[in-house]
Amino acid sequence: MDVKAMEALVQPRAVAVYGASRNPRKIGHAVLDNLRRGGFAGRLLAVNPAADEVLGVASRPRLGGQEEIDLAVVAVPAKQVQEAVRDAAAAGARALVVVSAGFKESGPAGAEREQWLRGFCKDRHITLLGPKSLGVINTGHRMNASFARNMPSPGRISVLSDSGAVCTAILDWAAARHLGLAKVLSIGNKAGLDEIAVLCYLAGDDDTGVVLAYLESIASGEAFVKAAEHISACKPVVVFHAGASEQGARAAELHTGNRPGADLACVAAFRRAGLIQADSLEALTDHAAALTLQPLCRGRRVAVLSNGGGPGVAAADALEKAGLKLARLSEHTRAELARVLPAHSAVDNPIDLLGDADPERYAQAVELARADEGVDALLAVLTPHAMTRPAETARAVARAAGGGQTTVVVLLGSADMLPGRAEFVASGLPDYPTPERAVAVLRAMVELHDWRNRPPRVVTRFPVNRRRVERLLLRQRRLGGTEVGEVRAKAILRAYGFDVPAGVLVTEREDAVEAAERLGYPGAMKIVSPDVVHKSDVGGVRLSVSDPEQVLDSFDLLTLRVQRHAPGARLEGLYLERMCPRGVEVVLGMRRDPQFGPILLFGLGGIFVEELEDVAAGLAPITADEAVQMLTGTRSYQMLARSRGAAEIDLDELAGGLQRISQLATDVPSLAELEINPFTLLGKGRTAMVVDARMSLLEQEP
Amino acid sequence: MDVKAMEALVQPRAVAVYGASRNPRKIGHAVLDNLRRGGFAGRLLAVNPAADEVLGVASRPRLGGQEEIDLAVVAVPAKQVQEAVRDAAAAGARALVVVSAGFKESGPAGAEREQWLRGFCKDRHITLLGPKSLGVINTGHRMNASFARNMPSPGRISVLSDSGAVCTAILDWAAARHLGLAKVLSIGNKAGLDEIAVLCYLAGDDDTGVVLAYLESIASGEAFVKAAEHISACKPVVVFHAGASEQGARAAELHTGNRPGADLACVAAFRRAGLIQADSLEALTDHAAALTLQPLCRGRRVAVLSNGGGPGVAAADALEKAGLKLARLSEHTRAELARVLPAHSAVDNPIDLLGDADPERYAQAVELARADEGVDALLAVLTPHAMTRPAETARAVARAAGGGQTTVVVLLGSADMLPGRAEFVASGLPDYPTPERAVAVLRAMVELHDWRNRPPRVVTRFPVNRRRVERLLLRQRRLGGTEVGEVRAKAILRAYGFDVPAGVLVTEREDAVEAAERLGYPGAMKIVSPDVVHKSDVGGVRLSVSDPEQVLDSFDLLTLRVQRHAPGARLEGLYLERMCPRGVEVVLGMRRDPQFGPILLFGLGGIFVEELEDVAAGLAPITADEAVQMLTGTRSYQMLARSRGAAEIDLDELAGGLQRISQLATDVPSLAELEINPFTLLGKGRTAMVVDARMSLLEQEP
Repeated sequence: MDVKAMEALVQPRAVAVYGASRNPRKIGHAVLDNLRRGGFAGRLLAVNPAADEVLGVASRPRLGGQEEIDLAVVAVPAKQVQEAVRDAAAAGARALVVVSAGFKESGPAGAEREQWLRGFCKDRHITLLGPKSLGVINTGHRMNASFARNMPSPGRISVLSDSGAVCTAILDWAAARHLGLAKVLSIGNKAGLDEIAVLCYLAGDDDTGVVLAYLESIASGEAFVKAAEHISACKPVVVFHAGASEQGARAAELHTGNRPGADLACVAAFRRAGLIQADSLEALTDHAAALTLQPLCRGRRVAVLSNGGGPGVAAADALEKAGLKLARLSEHTRAELARVLPAHSAVDNPIDLLGDADPERYAQAVELARADEGVDALLAVLTPHAMTRPAETARAVARAAGGGQTTVVVLLGSADMLPGRAEFVASGLPDYPTPERAVAVLRAMVELHDWRNRPPRVVTRFPVNRRRVERLLLRQRRLGGTEVGEVRAKAILRAYGFDVPAGVLVTEREDAVEAAERLGYPGAMKIVSPDVVHKSDVGGVRLSVSDPEQVLDSFDLLTLRVQRHAPGARLEGLYLERMCPRGVEVVLGMRRDPQFGPILLFGLGGIFVEELEDVAAGLAPITADEAVQMLTGTRSYQMLARSRGAAEIDLDELAGGLQRISQLATDVPSLAELEINPFTLLGKGRTAMVVDARMSLLEQEP
Repeated sequence: MDVKAMEALVQPRAVAVYGASRNPRKIGHAVLDNLRRGGFAGRLLAVNPAADEVLGVASRPRLGGQEEIDLAVVAVPAKQVQEAVRDAAAAGARALVVVSAGFKESGPAGAEREQWLRGFCKDRHITLLGPKSLGVINTGHRMNASFARNMPSPGRISVLSDSGAVCTAILDWAAARHLGLAKVLSIGNKAGLDEIAVLCYLAGDDDTGVVLAYLESIASGEAFVKAAEHISACKPVVVFHAGASEQGARAAELHTGNRPGADLACVAAFRRAGLIQADSLEALTDHAAALTLQPLCRGRRVAVLSNGGGPGVAAADALEKAGLKLARLSEHTRAELARVLPAHSAVDNPIDLLGDADPERYAQAVELARADEGVDALLAVLTPHAMTRPAETARAVARAAGGGQTTVVVLLGSADMLPGRAEFVASGLPDYPTPERAVAVLRAMVELHDWRNRPPRVVTRFPVNRRRVERLLLRQRRLGGTEVGEVRAKAILRAYGFDVPAGVLVTEREDAVEAAERLGYPGAMKIVSPDVVHKSDVGGVRLSVSDPEQVLDSFDLLTLRVQRHAPGARLEGLYLERMCPRGVEVVLGMRRDPQFGPILLFGLGGIFVEELEDVAAGLAPITADEAVQMLTGTRSYQMLARSRGAAEIDLDELAGGLQRISQLATDVPSLAELEINPFTLLGKGRTAMVVDARMSLLEQEP
């Protein structure tokens, strides 16, 4: 990232606003007004064909070479943008913010305009933000070059957003929570600066401590992951990813003209890069509050204190759901709590301080819980009884808290509690309206802590027969078609060290019995045809064939069925296999994402767990650690392991299978999809078996 | 419900406060102060051993027969409650609110106190609220007999809560949203009034339009479902159920001394009864706002309007995730939108009104969307740009909205938008801070609408052989043990019309081959022992046995393995079965919940989908409709159907299986658990097969 190139954008000395208007309903008016009201100390210019002066700022129809500016904010109709941009460039602008709509998102004519804009700025090394940007804000430079509603108060949070509307909402939420901002960059259609450039810049920006990002599309998967990994190591980045659903993706394309990334791939990529994924727009500021005010949470053991039993119960539910724990308090802590708290308080975690709890009681309990070595974080809940004194409680809790643990506060209820809120934040305590939202933040903090302390990534390379795979794929390409059938897919997997049932392709009825006897009973028989992808749809599979008569009958039956149900299909023969013993069947697979490359998948019951919103996606190349985490992090795996036991579920076999797929997908860039279904686990220490498999290739060699 | 009995509680003419204190940090002070400040028009009395007057109210040490009161609020230490209660009864109190803690939740001594209290009130027909109650509020009677922070403004929402703290939070949230309340009943440990009694009362209460409930435990499943069904038919009831997790359940027992219901059973019961389940505490008021201000949403097609693309994308994501749809606007609507909206607006749903949208533009778009017959609900998003005028937009949208559709508003951001909020609510439009929260509310409305319009419940009775099951279970009881093994479980299921593989129990090695030949190859062989529940754990299962030699080898092997791995186990013999053909394997089951009775379950991959948070629980007795809904409502079933196709997945077979289990569980009250795993679907039109099954009985005949 060229920091110099950003300077004209975030720290300009002179700014011109194109389209500055006296009409308060116009965007150009709002931008100029924001620059003035925000206290911008540099030179301001208005460009307007019809006025000498706007909002007290000198205005002229064009600048040409008469003025020397660093930054131009363009808020004119799309068709006039070109003229304004040329004028700004002539006036020496090294950065441009294009606020106007009517570009890539609006059809071919707009796309052409955007292409021109992109090329013009690139050729002249002009830093471009937008088009369809809300603008740029830098509180440290007292510059609000946007049509946001207000100038935010200064702070350590920076915002990066594909959507201007979401920027304005974040500004509002931050203000309501008394949180200050550093920089706001609304990248719009991102014809110039994109999320990667901005992340790189913010990583080196001393004013930025935490980044909040709203993203729909992601420009380049690999570069994004690299940039995100780099910044996550020193600054937490919270991302809300929109447009992940089918309806959302269509809407997003209409919004900025860019297609969002697939949810699955994004989740895998965000995880790899240490990003915190916000699951609602509100969660962006939820996370920001704790991340700016508190140290990262180092463990999963949480002490809950509250002046009501119900919220304590709700907090315990939320902790368990999020994979965190109620800390087990030491004997000593409980004894001390019992000593200082009134009768009928609950001294087991959650600690119930009762409805009449005063600030002193909170402080004592916080101090005692904090001193307990078994406590990683404190969650103090305050509900608004008649006797509750939120502001004083804030001060007392803040005095008692601190040290290594993370402390967060739940102010259950809202209106009445607001006077206390400012006090809490001023005391360095982030506050939340419900236990659920506070717990989500603690969990994200623990995960970021774990990510930062993860072991070095070492990707295992298995010895494989790459040449054989190349030959097999060459033959497939020659045969034509992108669907790789079972027999060839199994041969490829075998070359990558997978265990596959013994099998043989038979073309003549006469050879079938001998082949079956050699393989052993019971056997399976399946048709082989490049024209039939789903064999069972045409009745092309027979299982548990157990004697010569059944072999011959099946041969005839399967052949007839193909002729009947898929008349034109070329039949290469029948594939005879020794039946795999029964075991625990799982699904392993891979889908190549256009942005993030191969995504590894796991599933049960023939279904990838992603479809059940139980995400287990991993980015290739995957390490052994990551494969184990990817599996054990799902409810599906946990349930499977619990119901079947360690003797049946060999985690290393599963993780090994994912790693081999990862290696195959990395080695063979033309592999689009792969599904091993079922991958049958035969018990601890025994090699699992590929019972059925299919692959597909990209239309074009990449 | 005896309405008369409630009158003394909610509309008393004279109220005494025991423990009324001059110390503003005491609960008794807060209660008396609230009664005064709330404008209670009846007679007030303070009971305090040491004062003549408290807060201007005459006080004396005890009432005895000197005064005639309707209601007593008791806020004295637990040990003095008995004395206070006797005194109140002597003074004629027909209702009691016990605020004090130190009862069932605090150990044996407290439990004894609670038992006395319960008995005393029951014998004298005194209506009891508590102990550990926050109190009672009736805005229509201007009575705030609680230690909540403020008197709520009057309205149509009533609150029922196991937790006083949650009551106070709801009061706060409602105030912040400008929503009024009717009655608040904090039932605490519910030694007297419980959730069933209160629901029955509120069903008939003319002032109540919507009920919000926070519940941990539920007293009696059947009565609860009946009461909830009754009220849901006319008034929406929103429930937040806490204590469903393991940690939460333990915390809840410490809270009120009552054990919460299992989550699964509650979800099934709530669904049956038409209750709306809130998934966070905030969601309680989220739902209340729309339910009091708007008509129920009649369909799933939603039009989204916003002054920013990003929030439109987020709304589309949220709709899809919730199972709702972006409405497809008619040609006419789109043409009209294009006519009235400025260039570069998006006229496809989501409709992007652009950042400078004024109130008039919102109104025009709302009117056009509303006129479209393909639109069931409108979601208007307003983000705080500099030009945004929330209050005027509120008025304009409210004028344009109305008619049959549900309209909700998202005010993205908070602080700045609050001036607009009051306007929205005053105009009858509920507002939400994010699209996600608004969408959750629309979804709940549609579901309640569908529930109210559900077909009449007709439970199919299959012809079954009940007597045979009785005999089989009698034999099981005689044999001892609550675990019903595979052979007997299959016999029971066969008597209830399930298809089970042909099989025979063999005790002598010599008989095995003949039996196997008669059944046909390939076969399965399994040990039968009342002492071995998990046969495969001791290596007691052999599959795909395909010739006489294998039969004899397996006989020897299995017998030896039992002796080795389960030395003391009684071996009844070996069970020989014809192998079931391969098919699609699912799991069907039942667990009897102590509160709600038999809960039906469905799963894939050997795991009930509940464990994957993909709930498919149904309450027995289940109808065919309900069984189909229970299955098709899960992501798991949807994925299975999509990946395997209708030819393999026979929905009627699955639904039929659930109904038969439902009938069995209803007929046999001693059946505690049942699991058919796998239940193998053999294709459309073919009867599915019970490949393995187990059951367990209750320790005691019920």
